[in-house]
Amino acid sequence: MAKEGADMTEETEHMIERNAGKKDAEHVEPSADAKEMRAVILAGFGGLNKLRVARKAMPEPREGEVKIRVKACGLNFLDLMVRQGTIDNPPKPPIVPGFECCGIVESVSENTPGFEIGDRVMAFVNYNAWAEVVCTPADFVYKMPDEMSFTEAAAFSLNFLTAYMMLFEVANLREGMSVLVHSAGGAVGQAVAQLCSTVPNVTVFGIASCFKHAAIRDSVTHLFDRTVDYIQEVRKISPEGVDIVLDCLCGENTGKSLGLLKPLGTYILYGASNMVTGETKSFFSFAKSWWQVEKVNPIKLYEENKVIAGFSLLNLLFRQGKCSLVKATMDKLLSLYEQKKIRPVVDSLWALEEVKEAMQRVHDRGNIGKLILDVEKSPTPLMASDSTETSEAGEEEEEPEGDNDSKERMPFIH
Amino acid sequence: MAKEGADMTEETEHMIERNAGKKDAEHVEPSADAKEMRAVILAGFGGLNKLRVARKAMPEPREGEVKIRVKACGLNFLDLMVRQGTIDNPPKPPIVPGFECCGIVESVSENTPGFEIGDRVMAFVNYNAWAEVVCTPADFVYKMPDEMSFTEAAAFSLNFLTAYMMLFEVANLREGMSVLVHSAGGAVGQAVAQLCSTVPNVTVFGIASCFKHAAIRDSVTHLFDRTVDYIQEVRKISPEGVDIVLDCLCGENTGKSLGLLKPLGTYILYGASNMVTGETKSFFSFAKSWWQVEKVNPIKLYEENKVIAGFSLLNLLFRQGKCSLVKATMDKLLSLYEQKKIRPVVDSLWALEEVKEAMQRVHDRGNIGKLILDVEKSPTPLMASDSTETSEAGEEEEEPEGDNDSKERMPFIH
Repeated sequence: MAKEGADMTEETEHMIERNAGKKDAEHVEPSADAKEMRAVILAGFGGLNKLRVARKAMPEPREGEVKIRVKACGLNFLDLMVRQGTIDNPPKPPIVPGFECCGIVESVSENTPGFEIGDRVMAFVNYNAWAEVVCTPADFVYKMPDEMSFTEAAAFSLNFLTAYMMLFEVANLREGMSVLVHSAGGAVGQAVAQLCSTVPNVTVFGIASCFKHAAIRDSVTHLFDRTVDYIQEVRKISPEGVDIVLDCLCGENTGKSLGLLKPLGTYILYGASNMVTGETKSFFSFAKSWWQVEKVNPIKLYEENKVIAGFSLLNLLFRQGKCSLVKATMDKLLSLYEQKKIRPVVDSLWALEEVKEAMQRVHDRGNIGKLILDVEKSPTPLMASDSTETSEAGEEEEEPEGDNDSKERMPFIH
Repeated sequence: MAKEGADMTEETEHMIERNAGKKDAEHVEPSADAKEMRAVILAGFGGLNKLRVARKAMPEPREGEVKIRVKACGLNFLDLMVRQGTIDNPPKPPIVPGFECCGIVESVSENTPGFEIGDRVMAFVNYNAWAEVVCTPADFVYKMPDEMSFTEAAAFSLNFLTAYMMLFEVANLREGMSVLVHSAGGAVGQAVAQLCSTVPNVTVFGIASCFKHAAIRDSVTHLFDRTVDYIQEVRKISPEGVDIVLDCLCGENTGKSLGLLKPLGTYILYGASNMVTGETKSFFSFAKSWWQVEKVNPIKLYEENKVIAGFSLLNLLFRQGKCSLVKATMDKLLSLYEQKKIRPVVDSLWALEEVKEAMQRVHDRGNIGKLILDVEKSPTPLMASDSTETSEAGEEEEEPEGDNDSKERMPFIH
């Protein structure tokens, strides 16, 4: 990732002391000072306790940029990897995390045609999305359809663009093909399932934890539990394998999935969530997973007539300059949305102050669809619950401080 | 490759003694015995001297097969690798090499609809193509257009199908894209160039030895000599790289070519001719090249948004059962042929008895387009030339017998 997002100056940052008041301790009121805003701050790489909400200086748009009053933000698996620092070239903390948001255009810099004050927009930001206000180049901003809510908008861009470009730009999905999607219950998985249904006679094999099956059964053709041998299960139904495998897990799945491809089939890696698991608490485990990824011999691909690809929308946008292609793809997606052929699946809404609980839900793989940070939402009061703590995947072992932040809350489930 | 092609019985094989007569020693007359035919025989893996022409028993079609009186055969780079035994699971010699031919249907087995005696056809054969008569499943047989000559037909199938399926099935070539083809002067390279010209505004970067440039300059947009740093030359013209790289060389080209891809670009390996070079005379060198192939880390593909694929038409047909898809593709190609949008480029015609000289020409990378074995052609008389011998890439070091077979002939250049 480029580093321009990381230039937060310490002077402008007023970290809110935790537990300053007894009740609702974490909620940071919108600032009376128009030059300040609330934002999620990642103080350093590590566990959930590295995240805080604080006031910081309001950004102003540079040339070509749009300033957006944020209504809602998307929380993605990549944000967990950013928090742990397990990404390539991470920026230097403290940073404001987050890559996607939606809201209302508050101002537009000179020489930035296409947007006006008051436009309802979705946007990608190269970090800094989880704040009340963001500035980002107009190339990364898309107008929302009138009928789209901000909650839907925050769940739309990254997942549907990723799903669409994998299926139609990289893999060339056509009538009669079959698609296997790991993490069928996730936001990309659900977008994949919906987009597959726009092509005649496509078979979708989905893998998801058992407790999600009731909720997502209708979205896919065949659904398998994460614990079964999916290779064997798919082969029972389709002995010749599948045309497309979409994998956000990485690790040992890569070799297995390649083996499951039909001739001329395509395997696409679009994430590495196995690198961040409930069991994986240290960078050492991460590095181990990384090197365990099986490398692929091109001659094997030649002999087997197979295709292997990687897809990262954010790299495409922020490192590789493919804004125009992404914008053209967004137009196609918004057309499908307006035809009511696709609709983002939202798991739950969380206040900025609840970002830790939200992330814990992703660590626990508890979500079905997308988690949204709703900037205007107040945190749900802490429950006086005696529930045992949920798995602390996000916490670093070296900081076992008696942090009560992870006491269970009741999120607003959408 | 499957092994059914290799079941030649020794009894039926009458090896012709070399130099039995002084003039035209190698030409084997068509047999008076209708149960016998001439064929090229590979007696064992190794150099050119492992090849002979001999009479052997005429095959009869099994159920589902078509029996073809062969007019001409295609010689492909893969045939050189077969001769050297540097392929996966080679059949046990003696074998009749060759994978493609054309001719006239002589008989059709029961339950084989679609073909009649007298049909002019092109066919793939899983070995045994280089003979006066072949039998092969009807799935691998395609009717020739009336206006297509047998020479063209022998140069058509493998190269155009390979080029088309790589560009349109694997890589999804579209308007405005750019393609880099190694070996632009070869038969696949020329097919690629012609097919690219059927799509608007496609830029073709070709690499070929200097002496071929005059002949093929018009077929590509930019042509580079094999000895220059093509990465640098392409970057001068297209700093962002290319959309598609087609590589039949393998080895160090794989990593270099991947680096030259644009985001969302596709690298396709469709051969490994660097495994068979003028310098590579032993299996040891082959193995060295093989392991030198850089393996690809899927996470790198994810970070760079790149696609890597392999393509082997013969594996697709003979191992992977994709006959219907190939047949549908052939229909598209024949339509392009009839519209005069594509036309195979033939390098030269050779008698069966000249197969060694033909292979030497490929070892020397001397060909522009396809080499054809013309079954009805008599060998060109040996020239009483004092030319020094050409490079003996095909000869095994361990058999340095004073073999005069490689004395230069004058092939019939088409």
